[in-house]
Amino acid sequence: MSKSGGNGDRCECIYLDHNATTPVAPQVLEEMLPYFSQKYGNPSSVHAIGRQAKAGLREARARVAALLNVTPEEIIFTGAGTESINLALKGTLFPALLGACGSGAGSNGRAHVITTTVEHHAVSHTLDYLSAFGVEATYLPVDQYGMADPGEVRRAIRPHTKLISIMHANNEVGTIQPVAEIATLAAEYGIPFHIDGVQALGKIPVDLSRLSCTFYSMSAHKIYGPKGVGALFIREGHQLSAIQQGGSQEHGLRAGTENTPGIVGFGKACQLAGERLAVDMERYHRLRTTLLGLLDEVDSVRLNGHPERTLPNTVNLAFAHVDAMTLMLNLSLKGICVSTGSACSVGSLKPSHVLLAMGLNEETAYSSLRFSLGRSNTPEHLEHVADEVKRLVRKLRLVSEARTVGVCGPDCPCYFR
Amino acid sequence: MSKSGGNGDRCECIYLDHNATTPVAPQVLEEMLPYFSQKYGNPSSVHAIGRQAKAGLREARARVAALLNVTPEEIIFTGAGTESINLALKGTLFPALLGACGSGAGSNGRAHVITTTVEHHAVSHTLDYLSAFGVEATYLPVDQYGMADPGEVRRAIRPHTKLISIMHANNEVGTIQPVAEIATLAAEYGIPFHIDGVQALGKIPVDLSRLSCTFYSMSAHKIYGPKGVGALFIREGHQLSAIQQGGSQEHGLRAGTENTPGIVGFGKACQLAGERLAVDMERYHRLRTTLLGLLDEVDSVRLNGHPERTLPNTVNLAFAHVDAMTLMLNLSLKGICVSTGSACSVGSLKPSHVLLAMGLNEETAYSSLRFSLGRSNTPEHLEHVADEVKRLVRKLRLVSEARTVGVCGPDCPCYFR
Repeated sequence: MSKSGGNGDRCECIYLDHNATTPVAPQVLEEMLPYFSQKYGNPSSVHAIGRQAKAGLREARARVAALLNVTPEEIIFTGAGTESINLALKGTLFPALLGACGSGAGSNGRAHVITTTVEHHAVSHTLDYLSAFGVEATYLPVDQYGMADPGEVRRAIRPHTKLISIMHANNEVGTIQPVAEIATLAAEYGIPFHIDGVQALGKIPVDLSRLSCTFYSMSAHKIYGPKGVGALFIREGHQLSAIQQGGSQEHGLRAGTENTPGIVGFGKACQLAGERLAVDMERYHRLRTTLLGLLDEVDSVRLNGHPERTLPNTVNLAFAHVDAMTLMLNLSLKGICVSTGSACSVGSLKPSHVLLAMGLNEETAYSSLRFSLGRSNTPEHLEHVADEVKRLVRKLRLVSEARTVGVCGPDCPCYFR
Repeated sequence: MSKSGGNGDRCECIYLDHNATTPVAPQVLEEMLPYFSQKYGNPSSVHAIGRQAKAGLREARARVAALLNVTPEEIIFTGAGTESINLALKGTLFPALLGACGSGAGSNGRAHVITTTVEHHAVSHTLDYLSAFGVEATYLPVDQYGMADPGEVRRAIRPHTKLISIMHANNEVGTIQPVAEIATLAAEYGIPFHIDGVQALGKIPVDLSRLSCTFYSMSAHKIYGPKGVGALFIREGHQLSAIQQGGSQEHGLRAGTENTPGIVGFGKACQLAGERLAVDMERYHRLRTTLLGLLDEVDSVRLNGHPERTLPNTVNLAFAHVDAMTLMLNLSLKGICVSTGSACSVGSLKPSHVLLAMGLNEETAYSSLRFSLGRSNTPEHLEHVADEVKRLVRKLRLVSEARTVGVCGPDCPCYFR
C-alpha cells in the first residue's frame, strides 16, 4: 500500500494531524518562490523592487478578503494566528483599560470579556495575562458536545463588557459554535465580537458579509499555506490599537517588515481553499464517516464532540483503558501521525481542558486521540490506520489489564509495540 | 554593462538598498525548501513529522547562537526584528509597571528607560506606546555623527531606571554606537541593556561573550535570510515576560506555531554571514571608499554619519539643493534602487528624525540619500550609479535654480528626468 498522498505531501507517513498543521500546497509554494530572491524588495520601499513586493501584498490581501467575502481594507496580516488573536484581544482591551493605569480618557478603566472554557490557549492565556492589568473574564461552560449556549452569553453581559471572544470551530473536537446567533446578540448590545476562526477557515464556509462579527482570526499554515503568517479581519469602522509598535505597516496596526513570500502564499492558499471548499468538505465528510465506521468495531470507543455540528475533517475518539499518548507514539512508530490534542499544549502533560470542560473525567480525557483529515488522505489510508489502531488498542488494553492484575509491568517486553 | 549581481539577486536593477532588506541567498532558500512541503510538521507535535521540524529548529538555534558566540538556550525566535525589540522592551517594562495597575508584587510601579534620539521607530514608537502605561523615557542627544555619549547615559540613570535600549549601528547613517562602554556601565548599575542589533548583525563582528548586554535584537531579512523571522538574545539568568500569549513555544516566551522554514533559513543565513564576515567587511569597505571617491566629484555633497565608526556598507550623503525623494525616484526609473532613509518611515513625508537629531536642518535632511551595499554589488555598478547620480544632481539643481528664479516650474517638461 502506498502511503504517499497527492498534493505535495511527500512524507512517508500517513498524516492525520491536519489540525496541527498542513504541508504547503505546491501551487502555494510556486507563487511564493519569486518573492524570496527576485521580488525581494521591502514593500515599504518606494523604488521599483519595493513596488513589486507591494503589488504581491495587494493581490494576497484581495484573495484573503475574497474567501471571507469582505473588502481587502478589512484584512491585516500578522505573523501567526496566535498574534491575530492577541491583537484582537489586547488591541480592544488595552485602550479600555488605560483609564485606570494610563492617560486614556473617556474610559472607566474596567474591561470585562465573555469567552468559553474550550478556547485555544491563544485566547485563554491572553486573558490570563490581561487579568494582571485588571481585565475580568467570564468563562462560559459548554455542553457535553463542547457547544456554548448563546443564552448564557446574553446573561453574562455586564455594563463594562468590552469584548466577546468565541471560537468558530474547536481544534480538538471539531464542534462548531453557534457564532451567528452570538454575532447577532453582540451586535444588539453593541459589543465587539471576536471569532477565533483558525480551525474553521478553509474547512467550512465563512462568509463574513453574513456573519456579523467584528474580528476574525486566521492562520495560513492550517490551510496549506506557510507557517509564520496570520491575518485578522477587522470590520470597517471598528477601532483597534496596535500591539506591536515600529513602522507604519498594515495601516499602522502591525509594525515590522511584511513577510511578503508568506503573505503571498497565504493569499494563494485562500484562493485554493475557496475553489476546493465544496469538494473538500464533501470528501472529508465521506472519509470521516469511513473512519468512524471502521473504528466503531473497537469496543468501548466514544466520539468526543458534536456528531453533526462539527468540522468535517475532525474525529476525536476516547478509547477506554488506553493511554492515548502511548497509542499515539506507537502509531508514529508505524508511520501514522495523529495527535492527543492541541499541538500547542503538548509537553504540558495535563489532560485536555476542552475534554474536561465537556464533562469527561481525567481518565477518559487521557484516552482520547484526534484524527484530523486532509487533502492527501485516502480511504485506503484510513483502512490501514484503523487496522493499526485496532491492533494497538487490543494490545494496550491487554497490557493495561495485565498491569492492573500485577502480571506485567513497564519492564515486560510486551509493554511497547 | 551587466546589472545582474551574483548570489541569487536576479533582479534587473542595481540594488543599493540592503539596509532595507536583502534577497534570500540561494543556499538559504535551498535549506528552507524541504520544510514547506516535506518536513512540514508542527514542531510541537510529538510524532515523527513533528520531530523532524523540531530538529530543524534546534540546528537553526545553534547556528544563530554560534554567530553571536552564545548558547542556543539564549536565543528566542520571533516573527520580525520589530517583534524582538517589542519583546525586549515590553517584556522588561510591563512587569516593572504592574505594581501600579495590576497584581504585580515587589515593584514600585515606576519604570524609566534610557535611549537615544536616533533609534529605529521599533524602539521609539514602542516607548511612546508605553508612555500611556506610565513608562518614562529619557532620549539622549547624539553628536554631529549620530553618536551617543556613555557619560550622558550614566548621568541619565535614575533609581527606577529599568532598561537602557540603544542600537548597535544606525540603519540610516551607519554610525556604530559605543555599546561596549554602555554595556559595562549598565552592568555596573545592574540595569538590563537591550541592543537593537538589526543593522549590525552580519555586517560587523558581534561577540556577545565579550559584549555584556542583556538583550540583542535581530532580523533575518537584513542578512540574506527570509522576511518574517527575527530573534532575540536573552542572556542566561535574565528574566523577561512574554508579550504574545498562547502555546508554550520558545520556552513560553513567544507563543504561536514556529515558522520552521523561516527559522531554518535564518540559521543558514547566520552560518553564511559568519563564514563570509571578514571578506564581506573588507569588500564593503573597498566599495564604500570607491563610491565616496566617485561621488566626491559632485559639488556640495556632505557625508552624514561617522567617517570611521560606521557600518562598512552604508553611505548616507546630503546633496545640497536636491530633493532626495525626486532623486531617488529618478534613479529608480533608471534601474537603480536606493533609499531616502528607513523603509519603515516611508510614507510619513517627515524629514528623518536621525538626521535632525544629528543637527542637520530640514532642508539638508530632505536632500539626503542612503546607499547601502550588499553582496551583489560590484565596482562597475558603483561607477554606473555615480554617473547617473551626477547627471541627475546636475539636472535637479538646474531645475531647482530655475524654479528659484521663476524660469521653470513643476509643469516644465524638464522637471522630471
